[in-house]
Amino acid sequence: MIQANDPKIRSWVEVPSDSDFPIQNLPFGVFRTPGLSPRICTAIGHYVADLQVLAEHGFFDDLGVPRHVFARPYLNDFIALGKDATRAVRNRIADILDDRLEDWDASELAGYFLHLRDEVQMLMPVKVGDYTDFYSSREHATNVGIMFRGKENALMPNWLHLPVGYHGRASSIVVSGTPVRRPKGQMQMEDGAPPVFGPSRLLDFELEMAFVIGRGSQLGTSVSTAEAEDYIFGMVLFNDWSARDIQRWEYVPLGPFLGKSFASTMSPWVVTLDALEPFRVEGPVQSPQPLPYLQCEGPKSFDIRLEVDIIPQSGKGKTVCQSNFRYLYWSMAQQLAHHTVNGCNLQIGDLMASGTISGPTPDSFGSMLELSWRGTKPIPMPDGSERKFLLDGDTVVMRGWSENDSGIRVGFGEAVGKILPSL
Amino acid sequence: MIQANDPKIRSWVEVPSDSDFPIQNLPFGVFRTPGLSPRICTAIGHYVADLQVLAEHGFFDDLGVPRHVFARPYLNDFIALGKDATRAVRNRIADILDDRLEDWDASELAGYFLHLRDEVQMLMPVKVGDYTDFYSSREHATNVGIMFRGKENALMPNWLHLPVGYHGRASSIVVSGTPVRRPKGQMQMEDGAPPVFGPSRLLDFELEMAFVIGRGSQLGTSVSTAEAEDYIFGMVLFNDWSARDIQRWEYVPLGPFLGKSFASTMSPWVVTLDALEPFRVEGPVQSPQPLPYLQCEGPKSFDIRLEVDIIPQSGKGKTVCQSNFRYLYWSMAQQLAHHTVNGCNLQIGDLMASGTISGPTPDSFGSMLELSWRGTKPIPMPDGSERKFLLDGDTVVMRGWSENDSGIRVGFGEAVGKILPSL
Repeated sequence: MIQANDPKIRSWVEVPSDSDFPIQNLPFGVFRTPGLSPRICTAIGHYVADLQVLAEHGFFDDLGVPRHVFARPYLNDFIALGKDATRAVRNRIADILDDRLEDWDASELAGYFLHLRDEVQMLMPVKVGDYTDFYSSREHATNVGIMFRGKENALMPNWLHLPVGYHGRASSIVVSGTPVRRPKGQMQMEDGAPPVFGPSRLLDFELEMAFVIGRGSQLGTSVSTAEAEDYIFGMVLFNDWSARDIQRWEYVPLGPFLGKSFASTMSPWVVTLDALEPFRVEGPVQSPQPLPYLQCEGPKSFDIRLEVDIIPQSGKGKTVCQSNFRYLYWSMAQQLAHHTVNGCNLQIGDLMASGTISGPTPDSFGSMLELSWRGTKPIPMPDGSERKFLLDGDTVVMRGWSENDSGIRVGFGEAVGKILPSL
Repeated sequence: MIQANDPKIRSWVEVPSDSDFPIQNLPFGVFRTPGLSPRICTAIGHYVADLQVLAEHGFFDDLGVPRHVFARPYLNDFIALGKDATRAVRNRIADILDDRLEDWDASELAGYFLHLRDEVQMLMPVKVGDYTDFYSSREHATNVGIMFRGKENALMPNWLHLPVGYHGRASSIVVSGTPVRRPKGQMQMEDGAPPVFGPSRLLDFELEMAFVIGRGSQLGTSVSTAEAEDYIFGMVLFNDWSARDIQRWEYVPLGPFLGKSFASTMSPWVVTLDALEPFRVEGPVQSPQPLPYLQCEGPKSFDIRLEVDIIPQSGKGKTVCQSNFRYLYWSMAQQLAHHTVNGCNLQIGDLMASGTISGPTPDSFGSMLELSWRGTKPIPMPDGSERKFLLDGDTVVMRGWSENDSGIRVGFGEAVGKILPSL
């Protein structure tokens, strides 16, 4: 077992029972306090722990980890040290925070390296190179297919044979908390009519998760499903905001473009695959059997509960979706093996998102398009209004966490974005 | 007139009359000589001029350009100085190389700052952030449409209203000269059959040009067609290698992915928009009139002649395509205005490619798909073989240049790639 995952250890930092960030999580992020430059941190209970301060006090020196990687504005250089090193750092942090260990004077340092999370600014954790978005929920692809092509042709012929994906825009990925401006663009109000220009009327969220590439690969080589998880540093929550009207008019034949590229929101904490290990589960049975390069040994999914809230400007919101990462048909290992099977190279910091994670029941659908069934079933809100799609002033909050019999909860925090009106 | 464009000036460096690189061009690139780190250069005749050496001798100090930007492995920091600064540097280089000006002792320095181009290694000129590929040739879109959907439905309903585009993979863009490995992947041999896995059988080139973003924009804001060229640093040749069989099976509904992401080749010299100014021309008439945000004042295209050669392993090749950048229906200004109209932000080093540049006649089609009309019209080669698509060992050479009445030729050099067999 990975040392930091031991369910028996407790931290001398108080961790509420419903916290996403017990000592068994220890995700990585980047934060800033007023007047100081960005640096790398982890989360414990209500606090962030400044890893640069710990590094400067020599806590990681014997691990062969250079101090300067913690003083960077992104995790990329830290991740580039490799999994052995980053795992050793995570275990060392667990030692420092463990209430059983007396040989550190860490608790004396607490005032120097712990900050209340509410009092710091979390930043983009990684510099994203390329961003890929998959389309790996069978329920989501089926729902969208039924709406646009009818029940008989819901899934395209390729869907059960490969993890369909496309390249997304990396520059417009923002960290949780960044407001999102309603995009303008071309849309066609009815078939055959000339397009009109204006603010999107069908603005949507998409509940996704994404993984951060932790190891590069050479152009011309492939990564097998067996090796794939060695190339994954960790996971985040991801909101792939979508303007359905812009998307519908533009996307044939080359796929989504401006209907997506105005913004995507990621959560600030990268939860390591190590921390998620206790929550590993089998994904759905795959039939037909995929081609050999997509076949996997052992469970490759994770039991991660997901929720989406919409909070109107009025302030009283509600949870509109409850889903689970384990519903995804294609695993991250399969996505990554597929992505590289043509020789496409990976770079540290690349981001690969799952696609909308819809479950089998209507309350588990991961987008307004599905929840309101293309606007035909508006969702009542506590303030008396209803939602077919998102309105200006709405805040969308995504949460995710794993929990098991040991009572340990490993969470992702939140991916939050508020819709601002078009300029 | 921009000083360096003066057709009357001549360099004291010998420039053959058919050279792409007279003193009126002065493109920017990055090169390396054995044992030394990459640095920024320009091209003159058969030579590269090492701008770091000139900077160290103080030639750019009075322009307020810091010396260290020339000692970088990419042009990005140089470009980030802004057009006023990079234009001043280009004009200063013209002064240094001008045979009329005696007040420099530059010719004495020649041995230090000039290297034969054949003796240096050209590198990727920019660190590409996001890469976008448009689909802006009406002839290409029509040809592909006829082949796949018939003559009546050749152009999709959106095509004449907006510059269709999609996000591409940035990590696999390589500089001219880098061999390209034939990709493997899934393909469907006939409709309804299960997919098979193997090396692509329908490997193709796409003759494109691309422009390099020279100025960033803020997320949530747009760039107008009038401002667009201020955001373009310069242009390169671009080969958007395509595996037609992989692409055909994967691309519905989310667009091209592994059929493209195995490699794209760019030429090493970024030719500035300034250098192309004498070759500015009107593009095709646009009907229907585009929406206001896509309308332009004045000519926004450039007369750039383009050629593609295929050279088999045997060595005897031929020119298979002669086209021109001016055939493109949508201008770069329109592409850029469209790309940002939803608030998508630009970053310095982003690359936007044109899509295949096909002309009106069969010998001007910019891909094997069109030249061999989906394999039905094989192209005879000088060695007696024929080509429907590319074979292992084939080298594809793309060239581009502008030339006008003054006799000045401003060229792009070459984008070259040789196909290696699948592993």
